[in-house]
This record gives sequence, C-alpha cells and structure tokens, in this order.
Amino acid sequence: MDKILLHVGPTTIKEDVLIAGLENNIGFTSKEFVEAFSYVLKGLRYVMGVSKNYQPFIIPGGGTSAMESITSLLKPGDKVLIVSNGVFGDRWEQIFKRYPVNVKVLRPSPGYYVKPEEVEEAVRKENYKLVTLTHVETSTGVREPIKDVVNNIRKYVELIVVDGVSSVGAEEVKAEDWNVDVYLSASQKALGAPAGLGLLVLSPKAIATLESQDSIAGYYLNLKNWLPVMRSMEEGKAAYFATPPVHVILQLAEALKLIEKEGIENRVKRHSVVAGAIRAGLEALGLEIVARKPESYSNTVTGVVLKVAEPQKVLSETVNEGVEFAPGVHPAFKYFRIGHMGWVTPNDAVVAISVIERVLRKLGEPIKFGEGVKAVQESLSSAR
Amino acid sequence: MDKILLHVGPTTIKEDVLIAGLENNIGFTSKEFVEAFSYVLKGLRYVMGVSKNYQPFIIPGGGTSAMESITSLLKPGDKVLIVSNGVFGDRWEQIFKRYPVNVKVLRPSPGYYVKPEEVEEAVRKENYKLVTLTHVETSTGVREPIKDVVNNIRKYVELIVVDGVSSVGAEEVKAEDWNVDVYLSASQKALGAPAGLGLLVLSPKAIATLESQDSIAGYYLNLKNWLPVMRSMEEGKAAYFATPPVHVILQLAEALKLIEKEGIENRVKRHSVVAGAIRAGLEALGLEIVARKPESYSNTVTGVVLKVAEPQKVLSETVNEGVEFAPGVHPAFKYFRIGHMGWVTPNDAVVAISVIERVLRKLGEPIKFGEGVKAVQESLSSAR
Amino acid sequence: MDKILLHVGPTTIKEDVLIAGLENNIGFTSKEFVEAFSYVLKGLRYVMGVSKNYQPFIIPGGGTSAMESITSLLKPGDKVLIVSNGVFGDRWEQIFKRYPVNVKVLRPSPGYYVKPEEVEEAVRKENYKLVTLTHVETSTGVREPIKDVVNNIRKYVELIVVDGVSSVGAEEVKAEDWNVDVYLSASQKALGAPAGLGLLVLSPKAIATLESQDSIAGYYLNLKNWLPVMRSMEEGKAAYFATPPVHVILQLAEALKLIEKEGIENRVKRHSVVAGAIRAGLEALGLEIVARKPESYSNTVTGVVLKVAEPQKVLSETVNEGVEFAPGVHPAFKYFRIGHMGWVTPNDAVVAISVIERVLRKLGEPIKFGEGVKAVQESLSSAR
Amino acid sequence: MDKILLHVGPTTIKEDVLIAGLENNIGFTSKEFVEAFSYVLKGLRYVMGVSKNYQPFIIPGGGTSAMESITSLLKPGDKVLIVSNGVFGDRWEQIFKRYPVNVKVLRPSPGYYVKPEEVEEAVRKENYKLVTLTHVETSTGVREPIKDVVNNIRKYVELIVVDGVSSVGAEEVKAEDWNVDVYLSASQKALGAPAGLGLLVLSPKAIATLESQDSIAGYYLNLKNWLPVMRSMEEGKAAYFATPPVHVILQLAEALKLIEKEGIENRVKRHSVVAGAIRAGLEALGLEIVARKPESYSNTVTGVVLKVAEPQKVLSETVNEGVEFAPGVHPAFKYFRIGHMGWVTPNDAVVAISVIERVLRKLGEPIKFGEGVKAVQESLSSAR
Repeated sequence: MDKILLHVGPTTIKEDVLIAGLENNIGFTSKEFVEAFSYVLKGLRYVMGVSKNYQPFIIPGGGTSAMESITSLLKPGDKVLIVSNGVFGDRWEQIFKRYPVNVKVLRPSPGYYVKPEEVEEAVRKENYKLVTLTHVETSTGVREPIKDVVNNIRKYVELIVVDGVSSVGAEEVKAEDWNVDVYLSASQKALGAPAGLGLLVLSPKAIATLESQDSIAGYYLNLKNWLPVMRSMEEGKAAYFATPPVHVILQLAEALKLIEKEGIENRVKRHSVVAGAIRAGLEALGLEIVARKPESYSNTVTGVVLKVAEPQKVLSETVNEGVEFAPGVHPAFKYFRIGHMGWVTPNDAVVAISVIERVLRKLGEPIKFGEGVKAVQESLSSAR
Repeated sequence: MDKILLHVGPTTIKEDVLIAGLENNIGFTSKEFVEAFSYVLKGLRYVMGVSKNYQPFIIPGGGTSAMESITSLLKPGDKVLIVSNGVFGDRWEQIFKRYPVNVKVLRPSPGYYVKPEEVEEAVRKENYKLVTLTHVETSTGVREPIKDVVNNIRKYVELIVVDGVSSVGAEEVKAEDWNVDVYLSASQKALGAPAGLGLLVLSPKAIATLESQDSIAGYYLNLKNWLPVMRSMEEGKAAYFATPPVHVILQLAEALKLIEKEGIENRVKRHSVVAGAIRAGLEALGLEIVARKPESYSNTVTGVVLKVAEPQKVLSETVNEGVEFAPGVHPAFKYFRIGHMGWVTPNDAVVAISVIERVLRKLGEPIKFGEGVKAVQESLSSAR
Repeated sequence: MDKILLHVGPTTIKEDVLIAGLENNIGFTSKEFVEAFSYVLKGLRYVMGVSKNYQPFIIPGGGTSAMESITSLLKPGDKVLIVSNGVFGDRWEQIFKRYPVNVKVLRPSPGYYVKPEEVEEAVRKENYKLVTLTHVETSTGVREPIKDVVNNIRKYVELIVVDGVSSVGAEEVKAEDWNVDVYLSASQKALGAPAGLGLLVLSPKAIATLESQDSIAGYYLNLKNWLPVMRSMEEGKAAYFATPPVHVILQLAEALKLIEKEGIENRVKRHSVVAGAIRAGLEALGLEIVARKPESYSNTVTGVVLKVAEPQKVLSETVNEGVEFAPGVHPAFKYFRIGHMGWVTPNDAVVAISVIERVLRKLGEPIKFGEGVKAVQESLSSAR
Repeated sequence: MDKILLHVGPTTIKEDVLIAGLENNIGFTSKEFVEAFSYVLKGLRYVMGVSKNYQPFIIPGGGTSAMESITSLLKPGDKVLIVSNGVFGDRWEQIFKRYPVNVKVLRPSPGYYVKPEEVEEAVRKENYKLVTLTHVETSTGVREPIKDVVNNIRKYVELIVVDGVSSVGAEEVKAEDWNVDVYLSASQKALGAPAGLGLLVLSPKAIATLESQDSIAGYYLNLKNWLPVMRSMEEGKAAYFATPPVHVILQLAEALKLIEKEGIENRVKRHSVVAGAIRAGLEALGLEIVARKPESYSNTVTGVVLKVAEPQKVLSETVNEGVEFAPGVHPAFKYFRIGHMGWVTPNDAVVAISVIERVLRKLGEPIKFGEGVKAVQESLSSAR
C-alpha cells in the first residue's frame, strides 16, 4: 500500500516539487539556476516575514549546518544563552562546546517550555552576546512564544537567533516585526522540499557583525564566505564559493512558488486546522499529548504518549496501514510523533487518526475506537 | 535548443538518476532510505577501489565539506603538507588556516604538476602528520600521479589524503592498493548524480585516528559524529545525527547502480576514449590545452586556451549552440573548461568539438574549421 | 489541496506507473518497447485468467474501440444478443447498428441485472451467433454473474463476449475456466494505467473465426490486421500495422508488473475490502446505493443516490475537499458514482466517506454525520 | 550509451513534454483536463494554419485512425481519388476498400511524386467527391507540393483531404489559405508528443457534410460522435463520448505550448536547417537519397540508399553507437530512414552523420570518411 509520510521531515512532498528537479542540464552557473537561486532568496524573505533589509542565505546541509553557521557571528570568549525545550535546543550546546565561547543553558521540565519571564530573568543577570531560541522544539512539539520572549529580552542582548526549523512555513513568523536577528530553517520541513539546505535570514545588525570581525567559524559553514554569492546571485550573476545542491534548490524554488500561490497566511491556517483536527482525534481516543500546555501546542509536530503499546511496534504497524510517523527522541516520554507539515491536508488528519485507531486497537492500547475519526470530522467540519 | 551540460559539475545527468528522486514519501528513517544509504556506502568502496577494511562516509555538502571534515583527523599544532596544482589544491590551505594547525604548500608552475620526487623531498625535510594531494585539479584539468607520489612518501607521513573530486568514477582509483588513507569525492562530478553530498572512504588507520582522539573539528563536519550513523545504516538500521539529503542519496544510489552495471573499468575506458577524442579535435583545430604535460592529461577536465576570443563570449555563444561549458578559474590562463565526465558519450565529444568549431569561427579565433570534427571521428573510429 | 481521483477511470494512478512513460528515446521498433509489449501480452493473460491458448490483443483506444473490434468476428446478417444492464451495455447496440447485423437487447429494471435464466431463455428462443455481457456495468456499478450466465447459455451460442472494462484487475476473472470467447478491457480502469488502450483476449474458437472469414469490420479496429503484430511482438520481433501508443504501453507494462507483485488474488481481495468499507460507510450514513441487489454489488463502482443535494454541487464541493468522484450517467437515478479501483487503498475509503460526510452535511442532505467514518473503521478493522 | 531516437515517430521527445503526463489525479472530467483539451484544439488551428472557421478534432489512435475517420464524410457509392507516393498513400486504398465507395489511385515511379498537372488531369476526367493527398510520404521522405495541387484541382472536387502526418509541425502548412478541407496528423511525429492521438481540422464545408448526412463510418472513428465533445470542451465543459487518452493529451498540450513559444515559422526553419545539414552530410559522404527530385526533399524524413551494407545491420550498429534510425518500408529500395523532426537540433544532425560515418566505414560501405561531418559543419555554419 502506498504510504503517506507524516514524519517530522522530510514529510510527504508534492510531486510538482520533486519534478522541478528533473533537470539534466542545469549547472551552478546556468541561467536557469541563477534565476531559481535568486527566487529562493526572495521567497525566504516572504516566509520569514522580512523586508529587503534582511539578507537571506542558502547553505548546504540543513537545520544543523544553519545552526553551526551562527559561529560566523561570534568571537572567542563570547557569552551565549541557550533556551532549550528539548533535544534540538540542546543541540546548540553541543555545537558551541566545539568552539571557544561560554555557554549557559536554560531548560524547563520535559514537555514544558521556558517562559518569557524566565528568559528575561537570565539575560538581566548576565551580559549575553547572543541568545538562541527554538520556535517549535521538534522533539516534543512544544512551541515557544517567540514574539513575547523577544519583547522581554530585546534590550539586554546584542543578537537573538531563532531556530525556526519546525516552524517556518507553518507558524506565524515575523522576524523583522519581532526584531529577531537571525531566523533559520531547513528545506525539508514545513517548506515542503527535499532535505539538503540550511536557510537563514540575517538582520542588518547581524550582517554588520558578520562583516566587521573575524569569527570563530570554520570555512564551509562560514557565512562570510557565502555572503558574496548570495549578493551576486540575487543580482542575476552566477557566483561560486562551493558547489550548492543545485537540484534541491530548484525544488525549493518550486515549493516556494506553490507557497506564494497558497499564501503564507492560508498556509499557516491550513496547518492550524490540520493540527487541531489531529489533536481533537487524539483526545477523543483518550490519548495524551507530549506538550503539556495547550498554549504551546504547535502546528507542525504532535507527540503521542503511549501507555501500553510499544512505540516501535506502533511505527511498524502504522507503516503497514499506510502512514509513516516519526519515532520519539526525548528520553522522558514513551511516545511517537506525528509530523503534520508541508503539504499536509485535512484528509491526512482523517487518515492519521484512522490508522492510529486501527493499529492501537490491535496492539491493545486502551482507546475509544471510532471516536477519533468522528472527532476529526467534527473538528474539520466546524473549521470551515 | 536543448543543451548538453559539459560543465565540471554538475554535468549532464541521466534521467534515470534524477527520476530516482521522485519519491514523495521516503524519510530518513524509511526502510527504502536505509537500503539506499547502505547501497551507496558499498558503492563508494567499489568506485574508490577499497575493501570492507575501509569505512565509507556520506556527508551533506560536497567536495569542500568533505575536505573540511579532514579536520576530524587533526589535533592542534599538527603539521600538514598541501600539494596544490591549482585553485582547488589551494582550497586546502584556506580551510586549514581557519584551524590551529601548521600548513606548508607545494606548488608547480601554472599548468604543471608537482612531481613525486618533489613531494618526497618535502616530506623528507619535515615531519608531516598529514599530506593532501589532488588527483585531478579541476581548475586546470591536470592529473597528479597519485600512485607514484604515495609510493615515494608513504613511509614518511602518517596520513595521506587524496581529493578525488574530479577523478572518482572516471579515473583509475585504487585507494587501498595505493595505500591512501582518505579518498574523498562529491556526488555531482564523475559519479553523475546531483550535487549535495561529500563522500569519503577512510583506511583503518584513519578510523583509528578519528576514534582515538579529540580533534580540532567542529560539529556538523566532524566525522566522529557521523561514524555511528554510517555503521548503523550499513547494518540496515536507521540512525540519526543530522538529516541527510535523502533524495540526493536516492539518486546517488541509482547512479552507482548504473556504474556497477557499466563496470568501473569500462567507465574509466569510456572517459578515456571521450577525453582523447576531444583533445584530438582541439589539437586538429590548432588550439592549445591548459595542461602542459601529456602524461598529466585527465579523463575529466580539459582547459582550452584562447588567443583571440573572449572566454565569456565563447561560453554564451556555445550555450546558444547547445553546449554549456565551464568558465576558467585559474588566473594564469585565458581559457574555458570542458567537463567530460559522468554520463558523457563519444557523440558528446563530436558535439562539443562541432560547437566549438562553429562558435570560434564566428568569433574570429584562428582555427582549422572542419578539421576538429574530422579528427574526433578518426579518434573515435580507431578507439573501437 | 491535492485531490485523490475516485473516478471511474482514469482513477488515481501510482507514480511509478506514470514514471515508466518518462522515456524520451523509445520508438515502436525499439528493443525496450518490444519487450514491454510482449510483457503486456503475457500480463493480460494473467489478469484475464487464461492460458497461452488465448491470444491477447493490445489496440489503441479504450473500452469502446475494443468493443467495436468485435465486428472482426461477425459477418453480414449475423444475429447478436446484447445483455445490457445500463449505459455501457446499450453501447453495444449503438455500435452494432452501424453494421449489417441483427441485434436484440435484453434489459432489466434500472439498478437490477438480467438474470442468468433470463439470458438462457432468450438464447433458447433464437439462434444467436454472438452474445455480449457486461461484467460490471460502469453506469450503475451492477455486477453480472458471468460464470453462471455462461454456464446456462454456453451450448446455445457460438461466441460469448464479456465487457470487463470495469472488472478486469479488481474482480475475479477466469475467462478460460468460464469458457468465455472474448474478454475485453481498457488500460485506465482497475488495471491502473493511463487511458489509451483497448485490451482483449480471444479464445482459440474466436481466433479461428477471425482467421477463417472476411468480416464486417473496418480497417483500424479490425483485429485481423493486428493479429500478426501481436504474434510477432510476443516472439520479440518488432512489427507494424499502425503506430501504437508507445508510452501508454510502457506504463501499462509497469502497472502489470506491480499487479503481479501484488498478486491478482490479493488485488481482488483489496478491492473487495475497500468496496465493502465504502458501502458500510454509506449505509451507516443512511444513504442508498444504486445497485438494488447486494449480490450484484461490485468491487469497482458504487452509485450513491441523493435525496436532497444536487449531484453537480456534490461533485464540485467534494473536489474542493480533496476527492474527485464521477458524475452519474444513468437517467433513472439522481446520483453520483464512486470509482474504487486500481491502486485504491483502505485509507482512500476512509477519506471518501469522510469527505462525503462533510460535504453532504453542508449541502443539507439528511445523513448521520460521523457514523460513516466510524462504520468504515469497523469494516476495515474486522476485514484484517 | 544513451541513444537519440531519429526515427520517423515517435522520435526523441523533450522531457518537459513527457513530464506533463506525470499527473496522477486527473480524469477526463477534471478541470485541468478540460483546459488542456481546449488548449490542444486551439493549438491544432495554429500548427495547421487555420482560423476559428475550422473545427479541430482530437481522436484516439494516430494517423491511421484519423485517416479512417474520413469515412465520416462519405456516403455509399461516393468516388474517391487517392494520390499515393508510397506506402502511406496506399494505406488510403486499404482503408477505403473496407467500405462501399469507389476508389481510384494515382501513383508515380518509386522515389518520385505525382505532379500537380497529373492530379488535375485525373480530376478533370472523372467526378470525384473526395481527393486524398499525402504532404510528406513517410516511406520515402518525398514531399508533395500541396498548395499547387490544390490550386489545380480545387474547382473540380468537393472535398480535399491532406495527410499531414509527417509534415504538420515541421513544414509550412496553411490549410485555410490553401483551401484544404481536412488536414490530419498524429501526435508522435513533428509535433513531438507521445503516440496515441489522431488530429484533424475540418473546413466549414467538411463540417457541413459531416452534419448533413449519415455516413458509411462506424462508431468509434465516426467524427459525428466526437463533434459535440470537441465543441463542449472548447467551451470549457467536460463532455464524453469515449474515454480519451488523458495523459497523452496533457503531453500534447505541453508540446504545443513549446511550439508556440518557439514560433511555428522558427520551427519550420529549424527543421529545414537540420534536414539540409543532414543531406549535405550524406552527399559529401557519397550516399544517395531516396527522394529523386530535390524540390520534393522533405524537412522530416530522409531515406538513405545503401550499396553494400545491409540495412538491418546498419540499424543495429547505429543503435550501439547511440542513434536509432528507422527501417525502410518501401519495397523498391534497399535503404534506411532518418527521421529528423520534433525537437531535433543542429547538433543531432552532426551526431547522425558522425554515427553513419563510423558505422558505414566499419561495414564496408564506400564513403568518404570524415567528409560527412565536415560538410554538416559547413552547412550549419552558413545557415546562421
């Protein structure tokens, strides 16, 4: 049976996006590529909610390479505060400890998030050059209220960096209005393209920092090396630092074209409707969600706590029934994750819950069989 | 007019390779992906000429990310010798100078290569932990006699690293027989897949070095972080460090399947026939080749020196005539480059020379019009 | 929103089937094409349930061209009995009245089928050269019990022809065991390939008739002209009568490969499970089905009778909700049709009913909202 | 080695055209399909050179089905004159002899064409209802001067039908200016789409004839049955007579889009340049062309006469060298055919001649090796 991929990334990709990569004669200096690259740069501004004041970057890799490229903004001895709601927040620490900077980490209880006032308290106490936040923590599906946090801390720190890997394209993102210096993401999540690209937008202040100093960054992930390429490409002139993933960029250009056609507000709305329907289904089944606080539910990832069934068994059985979900990765929970982002549809919510119902019944998990799909239907029917 | 891409990478890609990426529901934990990943690991051993003693790596990025990942083998203060025949040899220096190691560079005159005895002389004088060589220098098309160099220097250095970006898949590569510790390459060159991947094989000694020490490497390009993923994937179990470019890996798996079907010896022979025909055509036209020494001609890249016509003009006119070549990047020459690798055919040699003839006549370059294609025909006819 | 196509043909097609047509250099004399053609001939025997005694035909067009090609078996003045359960049974009459043959039509009340004993009575009364039956009548979704009818009439008629357009690939078909002379179908229905091909298998008796006489047939749809091509192609030799739809045949070959992989019994079972789930959902909603007799329910088409909502409105609203159904075409009912064939999955049944629920509620049709999907779930859960 | 297909149809197809068929959820009543269908109807007018006065038809099949559909314009006993320059001219006779009409055939010596004055003489002698002409005879590559013939005979006959199967899309076609009643073609030739469709445009007089009478035509290929579908589709409303080859129509729509982008005059010019270069190459090699009269050389098909080598051997060897040509089918010549139509490029002319040179040398055919490609180069260089 053909399955749908409700993973946390890559997730089910539209055929048109994949087809955009069926180009056998486009190189990194080809006219068609320069146009696509330039189009993606502009599209990043659109989905991140920034004007031409911000400089977009397309670099090879993904969320992690984008995160490590932030070293381009740091000097030896700089102080960094990491606000971590889970595994991917913690990743910032693992990255920075390879470099000569001082790092402090704030963490909530599992399934919770660090509150704006807690971040504020931390930055008041100590003088941080840079603070990192995670918009949606992929390991738990917990959403951080970025706008509020930034509001509380803006005056105390020089640079604020947000990991929007699991949010950009599915949650409201207004990097410029919110006064964020760097918003970063990856191609394979809510933007709905194949994996292979790290994506960032940098504020004028971040660019000034980048250009004014030598940093602790290495070579390949050093944004200073990529900056001239971004500027040249946007002006329509081929430029080279290292060979970019040409075909993934062609595909991301197509994804962004479809996103503009849908409209980013509609897209966020669609994700919200689907996420709401899935949660309604889970709740009607009597299942518990990893994110503890309703205000932190995200549009993109929902963790489902299991009492009886083994997550690994659930994952293999649901694949047999036509849906591939993602394993849990947070040690505090026995769970699996539903990724609902990219090109996900209301009908995918129906299918997701219907498959979960059938499999969990089979595996002996206590659920109210049939009530899940019914609740999804009510949720979708009233969302129109 | 549909063009063919005779660039230095990406170059013209077989449709079957691109089509392998038309998978809308495969994620990095999907069974199909684990199989493809595992297949690529084995295929890398095949094209690099190594047994199971060597550990292959697939990392995001390309040639440059693979080069920087070599920092995973170095400690602060290590001494490194770089043998550079051009722009991409020099890139090693640019990378290493971001790290706390001591670097020495050997360089020949432009268009020449550093001789084995010159490398030997250097390593006898000084105690180097690691030496880097470039099999085919992409900027000039000059080939280094790797086997001979290694023969001369093996006993004096701990680790020998070869940049095979423009050779693996088109030149004879016998990393294990030749006693090379690391052979690295990228997906978009002679392997004929889209860009997006750095590829390496490491000798047991290199792996021991990697595991035994902490290195100067950062996080994303630190091979130590990727090693468990490689091992787990080869055993058929999904593993995660950072999201890999799933679709490019599916495509590289298809490319490697086609390479095995062709047979690596046949493939090297094909590249040799095509390269020979192209050079025969250029010489019959009276054009000069960038590589000065015939023994250093490569199977993959040929630089064409221009007396009269402007390279940029040649490039735009040849695109109009149906072939996209690569610009020159070495400051010592007025030239453009023909990339003849991947899925290049004898008929592509005919087309390349026929287009060069027509365009150079139009642009006033002194050539013997018509003699080029005739010489290609003789070369191909006698190569059978 | 991406829609699924639950039409009566073409219906949703697997990407792998479509991709098999991405061949830019295969002509009708190409080796690859001869192989695919030959493969399809063998595959037709498999899905029609016949041995090498039967001769398969691939002709351009579809169900209607295959039907008209039956004129190749008739001489002027021949008597033909048509057993028609609806619009596509009646099509036989429209075809034959263009030719010099005598035609009699048997018809049931709308939504019913002509009983085996009724057909028997007709053929006892009159001496028919040929009888046509429709396995599943696409306009109503009514299934005729072919095996029983043939059993009752075999000794009274020379040639029995079955229109299996909406059955082959989804219903049990045993043309040889059942002693049917011609079973015909089309590429775009339950075989799950694109439209463009009429498909037939002929018994030895039918072939003898074809070869022994001149017929009333024209030129293009005259099976006598195609017969040498079929024989030559199966022996691996390119042959020509008129250019066949090369790419559709490549795609049908892929579809048949996937069908063999699934196994025809599993495939029929899957269709039966999905059809059962859809009917369970409709009944739970309180909706009426066009087919009046449960024993005549088909695995492929279900007509849904509407009391209040306008069919055309239902069709446009369901497209907006992500599913495209087929309009009704039988004048006796106010209805629309669900096509559930080809690559249809249990989850498609869930989606179909969920969309019908949401749209019919919106349009004021009296239904028990939520009960449909719940019933589908029970049906699927117990079908395992 | 990847081959190019220089057959007489299908010929090498642009990937974009094939990709347009990668639609898994479009049925014959889908909005997207109605749009594509309507677009093709308009595009047919463009390539056939007619205004909205003419009615275009898309029917399943190809050239032969389009030819047989002309029976829709005939009554029993009608007199038809067939002007046949070869195998496909003769096909008209084979078709019409299945129907109750009177047929006369005019034929030239092999390789020649029937002169306008010879046709005039025939129609003066006898009162013909309908005359058929073949614009380019695919079996010999001979072109008939349609405009002149029609000029000479227009006043003597009611309906003039031209088989433009191997001309539409590559030769000048002005059906309306030239006063032709029916121009017909097929999808897989110079229009560069996959096979599967017969295409026609009918003059107001032809449409009046169609509507005013019952004809000798059967059912499926009866244009009267298709007429309401054509009219409805062009108005944007789905309509049904028999399921059309949906995906081939989507692909033809893309081909026509690319043709409009190129411009039909440019397209005809390109075919003329390529055909001229190929003939220049053949002549320089000392090879003879099937078409005897230079004024009858076509832009699409060239027959190459062989003195020594066996055609079948040439065909298999040239496939090995990367080009697939078409076999000869006219019994008067020992030859093979080069199809140069659709998306053929000047570089294809170079490749074609280069491969012919290499293979014919190997097979002992007396040729001036190397002179062929040189002559192609001169021809292309001077054509700019």
